[in-house]
Amino acid sequence: MLARVLARLAPAPAALLGPGDDCAVLRPSGELVVTTDTMIEGPDFRAAWHGGFDLGWKLAATNLSDVAAMGARPIGLTLALAVPRDTPVALLEEIASGMNAACCELAPGCGVIGGDLGTAPVLTAAVTALGELAGRPAVTRAGARAGDVVAYAGDLGLAGMGLSLLFAEAADADGTAHARTLPALRAAHPEILAAQLAPAPPIELGAVAAAAGATAMMDVSDSLSIDADRLARASGVRLELDRAWLERGFGLQRGVEVPVPAMLTGGEDHGLLATFPAAVQAAGLPGGFVAIGRVVAATERSEVTLDGAPLQPTGWDPYVVRWPGA
Amino acid sequence: MLARVLARLAPAPAALLGPGDDCAVLRPSGELVVTTDTMIEGPDFRAAWHGGFDLGWKLAATNLSDVAAMGARPIGLTLALAVPRDTPVALLEEIASGMNAACCELAPGCGVIGGDLGTAPVLTAAVTALGELAGRPAVTRAGARAGDVVAYAGDLGLAGMGLSLLFAEAADADGTAHARTLPALRAAHPEILAAQLAPAPPIELGAVAAAAGATAMMDVSDSLSIDADRLARASGVRLELDRAWLERGFGLQRGVEVPVPAMLTGGEDHGLLATFPAAVQAAGLPGGFVAIGRVVAATERSEVTLDGAPLQPTGWDPYVVRWPGA
Repeated sequence: MLARVLARLAPAPAALLGPGDDCAVLRPSGELVVTTDTMIEGPDFRAAWHGGFDLGWKLAATNLSDVAAMGARPIGLTLALAVPRDTPVALLEEIASGMNAACCELAPGCGVIGGDLGTAPVLTAAVTALGELAGRPAVTRAGARAGDVVAYAGDLGLAGMGLSLLFAEAADADGTAHARTLPALRAAHPEILAAQLAPAPPIELGAVAAAAGATAMMDVSDSLSIDADRLARASGVRLELDRAWLERGFGLQRGVEVPVPAMLTGGEDHGLLATFPAAVQAAGLPGGFVAIGRVVAATERSEVTLDGAPLQPTGWDPYVVRWPGA
Repeated sequence: MLARVLARLAPAPAALLGPGDDCAVLRPSGELVVTTDTMIEGPDFRAAWHGGFDLGWKLAATNLSDVAAMGARPIGLTLALAVPRDTPVALLEEIASGMNAACCELAPGCGVIGGDLGTAPVLTAAVTALGELAGRPAVTRAGARAGDVVAYAGDLGLAGMGLSLLFAEAADADGTAHARTLPALRAAHPEILAAQLAPAPPIELGAVAAAAGATAMMDVSDSLSIDADRLARASGVRLELDRAWLERGFGLQRGVEVPVPAMLTGGEDHGLLATFPAAVQAAGLPGGFVAIGRVVAATERSEVTLDGAPLQPTGWDPYVVRWPGA
C-alpha cells in the first residue's frame, strides 16, 4: 500500500532523504518553522463531499498556509494517515496525488517527505508542514503596531459560503452529507465549491509579505472576525476594519458576490491577514494584498471594530460552534 | 483547554518560538531529521490500560526513538490531538505531562514546540518529532556491510510480553480491554507492564552510536525479526543472528526471564538495532549495545537467519497480524 501511495509523490528538493527510513532528512536554509494539523472524517470533512484528491489538496493547502503566515517558504510535508481496514488503496493514492498537486501548484519546491500508515475507525489525516525562513526573522501575530495598515490576500468568505451551500443542498434533513446533488452544485457554483473543497491560498505571498516588511501575519482559518481578534490580542492593539474597503476589495471574488458578513464569519479560506507599516502602504502594498483597515492603540473596548462598532468574533470553532447538521 | 494543556509543558531550548502562533520556530544545528506517527484508541492503544500520563509518555518515546535511530538528537515534538467532545480536560493535561516527562527523562533538551486540538470519534494523537544531526550524516537502514557486527541496545521483547499479558489477564472473553485486574498485574509484573505502557528506549544512544561509527541503524518497533529483515533488505545484506548471544545479552532483563521467541517477535520496545564495523567491535561497542549477530554478503536465501536457519519475519503489523481480541 505504502509503495503505491509513495509512487504518487514527487521528491522534495530540500529532502536529502525522503520516505522509507525512520526519518526524513532535510537541510533547511536558515531557521525552520513547523506546524501541524489533523483532519478527521466527521468533524473536519465529509467523505461524501470530498474526493480523495480534494482531501489531499486541502490537507496540503491548509498546512502550507500556516507556513506562509510566518513569512517562510514551505519545504516539506509529512502525512500520518490512518484509515478503516476496508479503505480502497485507490483512495489513498488519490489523497497522495492531491497533496502532490497542491505542493506543485501552490508551493513549488515543497513535497511530501515522509509519513505513516495505520488503521482507524474513520479516515484520519495528520499533516506536519516545515518551512525555511532563509535568513529572515519569522513574522508572528504579535508585531502589529499602531499606525500600521491591516491588509488581506486571498479568497475571503468563499469557503464558508461553500460549506453553507453544501449543508443546505447536499445534506439530508438530519445533516448527513450526500453526493447526490454534488455534480449539479459544482456546475452551478464552481468557484465557491472549489474554495471550500480544494482551497488555493496565496502561499507564495507569505515570504513576499515578510520581505516587504509585514509587522504581523497569520492565516485566516476560523474566520476574519475570530482571527483578527487573535492577532489584535497577541499584538496588544486594536484593529479597525472598514466596511467600504472590504466591499471594494472583496465584494466580487471570482465572479461571485460576497456579502460582508460572509467575509467576517466564513472560515477555511486560509488567506493571509497581515499588518504593514504606513510607509509600506504609501509605497504600495505587495501585489495581492488589499487594505481592509488600520491598527490603533489598544483601548479597554473590543479588539476589533467594523466602522467603529465592536465586532463579535464569530465563525468556526469545533468546541463552540456547530454548523447546521454537524 | 489549550492553555491548561500548554501549562504542563516545559519550553524546548531549541525553539525560538513555541506554541501559540501559526508555527513554531526552530534553529537546528546541522541537518534536520523528521518523523511522524499516529496513535489511535483501538488499533494502537486501549484507554482502559493506558492512563493519560502513560499515553503521553509512549507517544513521545516512540517518536523520539525514530529520531535517535538516525543518529540525531531530538529537539522538538509537535502534538496534534483530536478527542471526543466529552473528554475531560484533565486527561489532556495528563497526556501533556507524560510527553513532557518523557522528553525530560529520555531526551533532555527536547520539548513540545507546538500542536493542534480538535474533535474525533476516538482519541487520536499524531506526533511529529524533529532532531538535529549536528554536522554528522544521518545513519540510515541502508549502510550495513558484510563483516559488520549486528548489535542491539534497549529492552527486547519485554513490551510484547506486556501486551500478551494484558490481553490474557486484563481483557474480557471478547477481547475488550478492562482495568479491573490492572493494579494486581502492575504489582506482580511491574517491569513488563511498564515496558509496554510507558517504554523507556535508550534515546541518547542514537547519537552515541552514530559518533562511534554505526553503519546502519533503526528502531525496533514491530519486532526484531521484522525490522532486521527491513534493515537487511535496505542494505542488500544478510543478518546472521546468534541465539546464544541473544540469550546471553537479553535472556534476563530487569529481573525478568525473556525467552528468545519473545525477543524475535515482540514489538514496541523501540530499542536500537545497529551495525558497526568489526574494528569498532574489537575496540568495544558503545556502552549499552550488545552484539547479537554478524552481517554477511546477501545470498538468494532469507535475509535474516538465526543460528543459520531462515527466520520468518513475525510480529506486529496492523494490516497483517491481529492480536488476540484485536
